[in-house]
Amino acid sequence: MGDEMDTEFLEELASASSTPGGGGASAYCGAIAAALASMVCNLTIGKAKFSDVESEVVGCLGRLSILRSRLVSLVDEDAQAFEPLAAAYRMPKDNDALIEARTAAIQEGLILACEPPLAMMRAIIDVLRECDFIARNGSKMAISDAGACALIAKAALMSASLNVYINADSMSTDQDRQRFIDEADALVSRGVELADAIYLHVASEIGSFTEGGR
Amino acid sequence: MGDEMDTEFLEELASASSTPGGGGASAYCGAIAAALASMVCNLTIGKAKFSDVESEVVGCLGRLSILRSRLVSLVDEDAQAFEPLAAAYRMPKDNDALIEARTAAIQEGLILACEPPLAMMRAIIDVLRECDFIARNGSKMAISDAGACALIAKAALMSASLNVYINADSMSTDQDRQRFIDEADALVSRGVELADAIYLHVASEIGSFTEGGR
Repeated sequence: MGDEMDTEFLEELASASSTPGGGGASAYCGAIAAALASMVCNLTIGKAKFSDVESEVVGCLGRLSILRSRLVSLVDEDAQAFEPLAAAYRMPKDNDALIEARTAAIQEGLILACEPPLAMMRAIIDVLRECDFIARNGSKMAISDAGACALIAKAALMSASLNVYINADSMSTDQDRQRFIDEADALVSRGVELADAIYLHVASEIGSFTEGGR
Repeated sequence: MGDEMDTEFLEELASASSTPGGGGASAYCGAIAAALASMVCNLTIGKAKFSDVESEVVGCLGRLSILRSRLVSLVDEDAQAFEPLAAAYRMPKDNDALIEARTAAIQEGLILACEPPLAMMRAIIDVLRECDFIARNGSKMAISDAGACALIAKAALMSASLNVYINADSMSTDQDRQRFIDEADALVSRGVELADAIYLHVASEIGSFTEGGR
């Protein structure tokens, strides 16, 4: 860590370019969560103590690998889906016809820009499902890593939802706006419930947790 | 994104090696949060509308750049600080004298392994302080990115604390254990309060947030 390769994504995030931004960071944090859950699987597989769940854990690992690739791809997909919206905002507004065309392009752009964050949210919930299994059935040596996975996945989910809410906020029809808000709300509540349950399980396994620290 | 360079850290996380694990992921997520706050600064600097806060924002950007480097370095420092503990657990326990030496080495290792996560937590709280300023005073176009920063920084902080709690849990003296738990508790409560306040501010700025989505 610390060499140029590893910090390239961080440099791109920090730059004045809007992408990658909160959306790309959410997808990447989702991929970090998936990688942590994979590590817990890898520390479980091959141990005699866990032989009765080995085949399930191998299945988890396979699904987590696909989810990680998907979330990494969503960093770029999010940036690409933002392009039409950015282009629409740059359209001329010199007369009524141009203003109308610009408004229509913005509305289409807003809808397009919601798709990658919603896809991230779905993939992150899938990561949390795998994490739930491995946190309860995997190596206890890595229980804090399962907890880290749940915390980071929850942040990634909520952070992706911000991009849905902020785009929905500018939609001109109540129907579109409400549809995207409802979908994001449902995904947030499902994912947060799962992440919090995993975290509480991890906390109960780590003996010295005090109330203040939770 | 998506090429080999960018996914090397993810591969290392996912592997059966204990480091990088939850600690390294926490430090890297802290660096992502710092980079997002830097982006908000970069989208604010040079805009006439924000000229009255420009010098403060330039200061934020400088401090965030240092915090980001510090957090990236902590990925490696965390892995290095875990080495003596891992070595101690591998020490022989064939007779009482060896068992005593091993126990003493483990206790020393546990204390050493707490330092990088505590250093991450302090750096992440500093990131949240900068984020608080830029979320309230920076470009409103990037308000969701400031929210993403707060969410990811909070997860990174809590996730780093798990490594302190799990190491403290194995400490043999109540005094050592309580000292580390108290320090982690204090940092968690300070950081979570700050992160939640930033998030509520961002939520109030994004009009279409519904209760279910928070």
